[in-house]
Amino acid sequence: MSHKIVNLRVRDVRFPTSLEQHGSDAMHTDPDYSAAYVVLDTDSGLKGFGLTFTLGKGTEIVLCAVKALAGLVIGKSLQEIVSNFRGFYRLLTSDGQMRWLGPEKGVIHLATAAVLNAVWDLWARAEGKPLWKLLVDMVKDQMLKEGYPAYTTSCAWLGYSDQQLKQLCSDALKSGWTRFKVKVGADLEDDIRRCRLIRQMIGPSSTLMIDANQRWDVAEAISWVSRLAEVKPLWIEEPTSPDDILGHAAISKALAPLGIGVATGEQCHNRVMFKQFLQASALQFVQIDSCRLGSVNENLAVLLMAYKFQVPVCPHAGGVGLCELVQHLILFDYICVSADLRNRMCEYVDHLHEHFTSPVVIQDAHYMPPKDPGYSCEMLEESVNRHDALQLSSHHQNEFFFFHFIFLLFPFKYFVLMTGLH
Amino acid sequence: MSHKIVNLRVRDVRFPTSLEQHGSDAMHTDPDYSAAYVVLDTDSGLKGFGLTFTLGKGTEIVLCAVKALAGLVIGKSLQEIVSNFRGFYRLLTSDGQMRWLGPEKGVIHLATAAVLNAVWDLWARAEGKPLWKLLVDMVKDQMLKEGYPAYTTSCAWLGYSDQQLKQLCSDALKSGWTRFKVKVGADLEDDIRRCRLIRQMIGPSSTLMIDANQRWDVAEAISWVSRLAEVKPLWIEEPTSPDDILGHAAISKALAPLGIGVATGEQCHNRVMFKQFLQASALQFVQIDSCRLGSVNENLAVLLMAYKFQVPVCPHAGGVGLCELVQHLILFDYICVSADLRNRMCEYVDHLHEHFTSPVVIQDAHYMPPKDPGYSCEMLEESVNRHDALQLSSHHQNEFFFFHFIFLLFPFKYFVLMTGLH
Repeated sequence: MSHKIVNLRVRDVRFPTSLEQHGSDAMHTDPDYSAAYVVLDTDSGLKGFGLTFTLGKGTEIVLCAVKALAGLVIGKSLQEIVSNFRGFYRLLTSDGQMRWLGPEKGVIHLATAAVLNAVWDLWARAEGKPLWKLLVDMVKDQMLKEGYPAYTTSCAWLGYSDQQLKQLCSDALKSGWTRFKVKVGADLEDDIRRCRLIRQMIGPSSTLMIDANQRWDVAEAISWVSRLAEVKPLWIEEPTSPDDILGHAAISKALAPLGIGVATGEQCHNRVMFKQFLQASALQFVQIDSCRLGSVNENLAVLLMAYKFQVPVCPHAGGVGLCELVQHLILFDYICVSADLRNRMCEYVDHLHEHFTSPVVIQDAHYMPPKDPGYSCEMLEESVNRHDALQLSSHHQNEFFFFHFIFLLFPFKYFVLMTGLH
Repeated sequence: MSHKIVNLRVRDVRFPTSLEQHGSDAMHTDPDYSAAYVVLDTDSGLKGFGLTFTLGKGTEIVLCAVKALAGLVIGKSLQEIVSNFRGFYRLLTSDGQMRWLGPEKGVIHLATAAVLNAVWDLWARAEGKPLWKLLVDMVKDQMLKEGYPAYTTSCAWLGYSDQQLKQLCSDALKSGWTRFKVKVGADLEDDIRRCRLIRQMIGPSSTLMIDANQRWDVAEAISWVSRLAEVKPLWIEEPTSPDDILGHAAISKALAPLGIGVATGEQCHNRVMFKQFLQASALQFVQIDSCRLGSVNENLAVLLMAYKFQVPVCPHAGGVGLCELVQHLILFDYICVSADLRNRMCEYVDHLHEHFTSPVVIQDAHYMPPKDPGYSCEMLEESVNRHDALQLSSHHQNEFFFFHFIFLLFPFKYFVLMTGLH
């Protein structure tokens, strides 16, 4: 069956994560984890689901870009697309008028990712396979049994109190986690205290990573991270501007004697940038993102380049659906490319999975290979309706805005006073 | 007077330039030169006009982004903005949620440019000065008398016939032009023929530049340009991906023995990228763009870096309004930064100026310093209304779409037959 794409729908789905400081870091202090969520309808009734991850405001701009790309997708059959996928990719990224808006970066590339993710999901569903299996077309036993190693970012967001850090670390250790990431970069003394606290909690044999989310200049990154060397971080993530390849190279060189690598990639906007990061020895850990690059197509190119340079891939995940999507890619990387788990692990964040029809399965701090057909992009219809930012008139949306409004206006304590709960 | 900004309007202005192949090159075969056009209203009645240039499709996405930024601008006074312009710049580019969509690149950065261009225009008008004069605060006599040297791109768009090339070169020579740019990159034999033709027309003492608009891979660029060395081009512009700093460095190194420099910048998305291009000796001509970078603020940073590295700045212009805007910046560069005209010139393209209230003045192939207050962004209201893509119901808009539709459906000859004009 050819599965002709007859319609493309896109929704603006927002989750009010900023209310509890989930996801907060030095640069993104109040993210509302959100998605531009794409559904492809075909004449056969089969659907493809895709998304790209956003932080709330501006998601409507990505929707606008998805709509601008829709005309290039509707009317094409799946068969037509996959028989010349390179051509289709170029069609989306090289339109003579729209490429000016990137090219292959920012809003227009996020939209490309959302659309192509849906196409890949459709293809995998058409084959009755989860995407990773479509990719590897065979399964190694180890992955099915033990899964792919994960690390957790959920214990130490920047906005959490020390008490929260301790409690979350303690819970995570009990669940088998041995790899932890801490957000840093806003205040050096706070960072030293928090990192010491966590290193104490997890012990010397567990792995600790730190993440500055681009907060520093090059020289500042080197001096700041040097001060944190005592807690023996495996890597410093996003020490400076994601565009500054040569800056990352300077930081890598300076921190190598301390045994600290540089990790980056979640805002590395395309394969050309990754190529140079690898050429310049500017990173020691490649963090691909399933929704920023041009879907599976461009991510595969980066996996292969990373292998050529013998740099481990440790994907960026979390966000909305990023864990669900990227697990397919990292399984492919292990089974077909690297065949190596040394210094390799996939990020995990423990929220918003409940909105997906096939949420990730974590066992003993490992991603268990998904078995449902597709690219794991499909959200529960109820979740989409509840968080659709465009359905402003609905009850739930008003509730969402109401709470945001109240929190903006009044500190929590005052709010408690007002409502007579003191 | 504080000039409080009370409203921000944005229009989607499109000109059907693709009908006659103006602006066509190896990657952008059918551009409709367009603009997201911003008007700031203040409580004093003074207005600020700004724009960013686009190629037609997708302009609505930039509008959407401008609207998303509007809330950060409305309500602020000009005084408040300029007294802490760095803070205001960061406010626009570092919103914790929206920066995910860039950061500082693509659609969201184009929108930032449009908004900030309007703020700079407003400021210059408030001071009763053209922007460049606001910047330099004094005027060197030479510029007022002779103007800033320009080169022309209007003679040799890729879609023009040899006959057109000859005619346009001949006309340009008569008007005093001595610097010419040719579009290349689609077909090597065509390029050789066209470049020889133009070199023959303009003679050995005139300056010739070639522009591939990112068409090639690195190795391909080197071999292709080597074949064109016989026509002695001063530079090859955009030989490969605008993101590939190290690729440009390799090309620069390979072409240096042939006396051909590398020029790039019109799609260099921010100052961090320019910094690395300079650090890596990856370009020999810096081509700033008034509408891709974050307005005057970010362009000034690049002018200063270029001076530090002693690389001449030869701005990208043409498009919609790019000549009008960038002339202010290059005058500032000459008067306050470089004080040097060797290998320096500003691009000029001869269309769409008639839509501006203060169009550029070219005399003897030089940009004459503008004297009207502001940043020369204001369009004629009639032009905006006539080309507003959102006013679909208007007569002119229908006409625009009708002609496009007809040209898409029928080759010109067939159209002539159909209308009985044969």
